[in-house]
Amino acid sequence: MRSYSHTNPLKRSLFLFLFLFLSLLCPAQSQDKQTAPPFGIVIHGGAGTLLRSDLTPELEKAYTDKLNEALDAGYKVLENNGSSLDAVEAAIRVLEDSRLFNAGRGSVFAASGRNEMDAAIMDGKTLKAGAVAGVRTVKNPVTAARCVMEKSPHVLLVGEGADRFAKQCGCGIADSTYFYTDKRWKQLLKAREEEKLHPALTDSLGMLVPYPAADSDKKFGTVGAVALDKQGNLAAATSTGGMTNKMSGRVGDSPLIGAGTYANNLTCAISCTGHGEYFIRHVVAYDVSALMEYKGLSLEESGREVIMKKLLAVKGEGGLIGIDRMGNMTLPFNTPGMYRGFRSSTGKRGAFIFQ
Amino acid sequence: MRSYSHTNPLKRSLFLFLFLFLSLLCPAQSQDKQTAPPFGIVIHGGAGTLLRSDLTPELEKAYTDKLNEALDAGYKVLENNGSSLDAVEAAIRVLEDSRLFNAGRGSVFAASGRNEMDAAIMDGKTLKAGAVAGVRTVKNPVTAARCVMEKSPHVLLVGEGADRFAKQCGCGIADSTYFYTDKRWKQLLKAREEEKLHPALTDSLGMLVPYPAADSDKKFGTVGAVALDKQGNLAAATSTGGMTNKMSGRVGDSPLIGAGTYANNLTCAISCTGHGEYFIRHVVAYDVSALMEYKGLSLEESGREVIMKKLLAVKGEGGLIGIDRMGNMTLPFNTPGMYRGFRSSTGKRGAFIFQ
Repeated sequence: MRSYSHTNPLKRSLFLFLFLFLSLLCPAQSQDKQTAPPFGIVIHGGAGTLLRSDLTPELEKAYTDKLNEALDAGYKVLENNGSSLDAVEAAIRVLEDSRLFNAGRGSVFAASGRNEMDAAIMDGKTLKAGAVAGVRTVKNPVTAARCVMEKSPHVLLVGEGADRFAKQCGCGIADSTYFYTDKRWKQLLKAREEEKLHPALTDSLGMLVPYPAADSDKKFGTVGAVALDKQGNLAAATSTGGMTNKMSGRVGDSPLIGAGTYANNLTCAISCTGHGEYFIRHVVAYDVSALMEYKGLSLEESGREVIMKKLLAVKGEGGLIGIDRMGNMTLPFNTPGMYRGFRSSTGKRGAFIFQ
Repeated sequence: MRSYSHTNPLKRSLFLFLFLFLSLLCPAQSQDKQTAPPFGIVIHGGAGTLLRSDLTPELEKAYTDKLNEALDAGYKVLENNGSSLDAVEAAIRVLEDSRLFNAGRGSVFAASGRNEMDAAIMDGKTLKAGAVAGVRTVKNPVTAARCVMEKSPHVLLVGEGADRFAKQCGCGIADSTYFYTDKRWKQLLKAREEEKLHPALTDSLGMLVPYPAADSDKKFGTVGAVALDKQGNLAAATSTGGMTNKMSGRVGDSPLIGAGTYANNLTCAISCTGHGEYFIRHVVAYDVSALMEYKGLSLEESGREVIMKKLLAVKGEGGLIGIDRMGNMTLPFNTPGMYRGFRSSTGKRGAFIFQ
């Protein structure tokens, strides 16, 4: 007993020490788990009249495979502590390099018979942004947009000046054969034929009105990505080849900060796809952010408000993808389909086309 | 008495009738006065380091005279029941036709040695908008922007496509001699010399960075107008020649809906002037509207919040003009001066340059 009573205080102290040590350790561990910064990426490949009946199972698989490849490219950057800017650029480059989507290599032909591509990127941490419009020779317009952001004092460069700048920055350059596909060229020829057959497509001034706004795939071809990194920074980027047979010089919402692309660490990162003119007039990407900041709506509520109410009320077709600082994601669209996908640090992921 | 008593009811009825008639009429008249719809116009001709010591009394008078001429041109439209769209276009055409302001005929030269002009217009009633960027041959870019809005399905046309479209629409076209002034050409030569003398203006990639953002007049040359018409409709328009020696293809905030130009009958009409890149990244024109719509701030509070707080915090120099549906006007700027003026149906008017 004595020894017991002798050792008892020591044992008690040891026990107490262990208890205190563990109680200090365990909450820290559980707190680490609780505060493990969420991260994730959301992408889109355009919205429009996408019906399962229009796609073969093989083509459907090709699209979802490519969406997953882009998601993984972006997610890998985030997982390795990379920035959201690097992640959205990486994801979009995969889609731009594919002939499946209307951006980069797969861009549709403008009325000029050339590819005229637009892209934008925005950093939610600094509100810095870069964009190019009407570029014809840049393999990855999203990278050219990033060069404008990081290597010039400007936000938006258009036309030949933008092509020249991208080349000076070391962006990959290609001639028109790189962007040529039989499918897209036939779409242009078909659109030109339709224009001749439908005098209504020539307006009261006798000028060509390259409608419908959707391309011959019956979709608004655009690709976009938004991401949240482990450092809590948001970024957004969008890239597009525009509309088949579009009037020379027409710029849609994709490269316009606040319209098709916006990111702000205070609120969210947004990339849009749809009938660009409506998205410009309704300043859609920034509107989602403003509804969160000024009205206290959630990301999901804000996205729905703009896409399902404001735009639908004026028949503005399209959708958007968004992510906020907590890693919440939203992917609303008011068209029958939208190529889209997401991958989150919670383990959830998915790639979809139809409603 | 009898006749009296006989006529009395008739007189009484007549009196009653007259009383009722007048009482119906007078309140109507006074109501007419009370609700006589307010209307008015606000204009700017650019913000920047404008100091009285830099201007001769003659030049100061020339500037205020031209501002008053533009105000009167717009006000006359409103007074004659014209639309706010017609009013802002009329006011801006006066400023574009003057060699005093950096827009239209008085545009500065880009690095290319050419004039590359931008303009936008927006209708607050319909949210329709039109814009051109990088046009080189259009006498009145604001009218070309209106053509894009009314005669094309698009919002923004850039470069040669925009020039061609403006010509097809019947806009006045001129060759480069129309836009040539010795003063502006000397500014370009001076800017080129400065560029050679200051290697810091060449960035790490060895590319030209055409800074400072202000032109050689030490101001951000832009002209703009916002108006409220008797029908309660708002409109906004902005036009600019950009920056002296600007990189080819650079587009600032002026032609971008939501950045430099915005109008919405629900809130306000806004036209901005300043360091364009900051105005794009902060979606300034739409932000003023969003603060009113979502946060319930007044036009003045919203304008100050954006110009004096948000932009000043990031050293984004410039100002804006705004008008709301009640005819309230605001003209905040965070630079030493801003060419500006207003004229209201209340009888108040003014044209100013310095603080």
